[in-house]
Amino acid sequence: MSIYAHIQSSVKMEIVEKLRTKDRRAIAKAITTLEDNYEDSDRLLHTIFKHTGNAHVVGVTGAPGVGKSTLISSLVKEFRSRGKTVGIVAIDPTSPFTGGAVLGDRVRMGEHSGDPGVYIRSMATRGSLGGLSKATSDAVKVLDAAGFDIIIIETVGTGQSEIDVVRAADTIVVVIIPGLGDDIQAIKAGILEIADIFVVNKCDREGVERAVSELEMMLDLKEKRTWRPPILKTNARLNEGTSRLADAISEHYSHINRNGELEKRRRARYSEEIRDVVNRRIGEYMYLASGKEFFDEVLEKVLRKEMDPRSAADLILNEIVKFDLRKSNKKN
Amino acid sequence: MSIYAHIQSSVKMEIVEKLRTKDRRAIAKAITTLEDNYEDSDRLLHTIFKHTGNAHVVGVTGAPGVGKSTLISSLVKEFRSRGKTVGIVAIDPTSPFTGGAVLGDRVRMGEHSGDPGVYIRSMATRGSLGGLSKATSDAVKVLDAAGFDIIIIETVGTGQSEIDVVRAADTIVVVIIPGLGDDIQAIKAGILEIADIFVVNKCDREGVERAVSELEMMLDLKEKRTWRPPILKTNARLNEGTSRLADAISEHYSHINRNGELEKRRRARYSEEIRDVVNRRIGEYMYLASGKEFFDEVLEKVLRKEMDPRSAADLILNEIVKFDLRKSNKKN
Repeated sequence: MSIYAHIQSSVKMEIVEKLRTKDRRAIAKAITTLEDNYEDSDRLLHTIFKHTGNAHVVGVTGAPGVGKSTLISSLVKEFRSRGKTVGIVAIDPTSPFTGGAVLGDRVRMGEHSGDPGVYIRSMATRGSLGGLSKATSDAVKVLDAAGFDIIIIETVGTGQSEIDVVRAADTIVVVIIPGLGDDIQAIKAGILEIADIFVVNKCDREGVERAVSELEMMLDLKEKRTWRPPILKTNARLNEGTSRLADAISEHYSHINRNGELEKRRRARYSEEIRDVVNRRIGEYMYLASGKEFFDEVLEKVLRKEMDPRSAADLILNEIVKFDLRKSNKKN
Repeated sequence: MSIYAHIQSSVKMEIVEKLRTKDRRAIAKAITTLEDNYEDSDRLLHTIFKHTGNAHVVGVTGAPGVGKSTLISSLVKEFRSRGKTVGIVAIDPTSPFTGGAVLGDRVRMGEHSGDPGVYIRSMATRGSLGGLSKATSDAVKVLDAAGFDIIIIETVGTGQSEIDVVRAADTIVVVIIPGLGDDIQAIKAGILEIADIFVVNKCDREGVERAVSELEMMLDLKEKRTWRPPILKTNARLNEGTSRLADAISEHYSHINRNGELEKRRRARYSEEIRDVVNRRIGEYMYLASGKEFFDEVLEKVLRKEMDPRSAADLILNEIVKFDLRKSNKKN
């Protein structure tokens, strides 16, 4: 090992040690490092990765206005009273104009701000989708390595990107409120199918029983699995129902731990992540790999309609991969 | 040219000829072919691509409930009265359970169902994000090759994926309604920044002037560009304001055509598409390329925390690309 590598390595060990004590500045720095700089980022991940995999990652999703933040705040209180530490990654769709993301969460989660057992990280949804999934998964890894028992990912559940983000969780909690009408159907497409637990929040509202029975009916229609998602009623503002919710979250974790589903999910997630990195690196170096001039030349041909985009892609692929994709691997 | 290739080629020419007459079955078949089968799909794209690039692609986006479909229906009526043909690609977030996507649009767009100058294609949002962007862009290409003058992409504007989808448009129309309150902020993150035209629909509602002046204020804060997005008031149910909207859409098109922005957008779009295809093919053949056993072996190491996902990706990359990404192309 070179002296330089040794120095690098001890610097990283220091960060890891600080991380393990839940040092807030070390956590913040680690998350930023993973997001930002390329080489440092890889090295840091390399160092912290073996400390990950111990946290229970819980996704909480639902349309704007269903009270996710209040529910999470109440849930945090419950988990804290059970001696668990909690990290939160909040994906806040507030405009980057307003800079509202961080401030918003500070206000909402204010009551936990003095608690060293709670760490909140807000992320803006700006940037590309891949970027958001990656940033979330990186932040989760840091909080996991920092030893938080439970990591909550909060996201609005209205788009495909949000579904992708929440898939990073071991347990997926879908929050709805009674009487949102047909527009809430917008959330149903993919989210309902991946829910492990349903929460009907604001259960003092009219229509709560109808909402519950609609969900029950939907679950009746689905094929039977070993885990039937429970439907829980909460009133997060009054901390009602959150103790039962915390129980259900823990029960689900035990369940998937026992039946091998947890390992299956993690395997799928790592597989996905490896593919993402491969794709990202291919994308980042496509220019260099094929030559920027070559890429631009091909692009010009497409603009002039002399070549279609897929043929163009094949040309570029031929420049960068070792084998002939079109010849040897074509579906037929 | 082999006889087989010749037959293939004339079959495709037949589809193209039928497409050019806006034959509905040919359109439907072409869209399905582009989505589905790999080789046929490439061949078809190759054949139709040179006929694309003539349509004006208009994205119409907004939260559920703002009346996008009614607005589009009214807009179609307006464009038809101006002698323009219109294709519509509707991205419907309705649950795949209900099969509601196609039916829903048939009902909503019912009044155009007998008109050969209008074609409506609904797509479910199931599947991955990349899938949705690709499917939309493929459907647009077919409608473009079929000679529709205007192609409207309808999508809910609540997630990053929807932003990505609507980026495929030359002109982006963002629809809001008065008095939706803070929750509508959820839509603002990326969408407001990419709008070319704002529509305040349901302008008989209270709060319309406030909505307009908030948008104006937001635009005042942005850096000046050559095109300031107009803010139009409509009441789509009564066909009010849609003529002015159609004018604005055409004006925007002339504007970006004149100042080179249209070509810039198309260049960026093709560049993106080529990258997507490269990524997709790399992804599809990663197994074959690196060997499934090799991939699984690496994945096991990650699961056992013996290797982090990025190092795993680099190992796999080394198997499939021609050069050493980490050595030769590192930033820093």
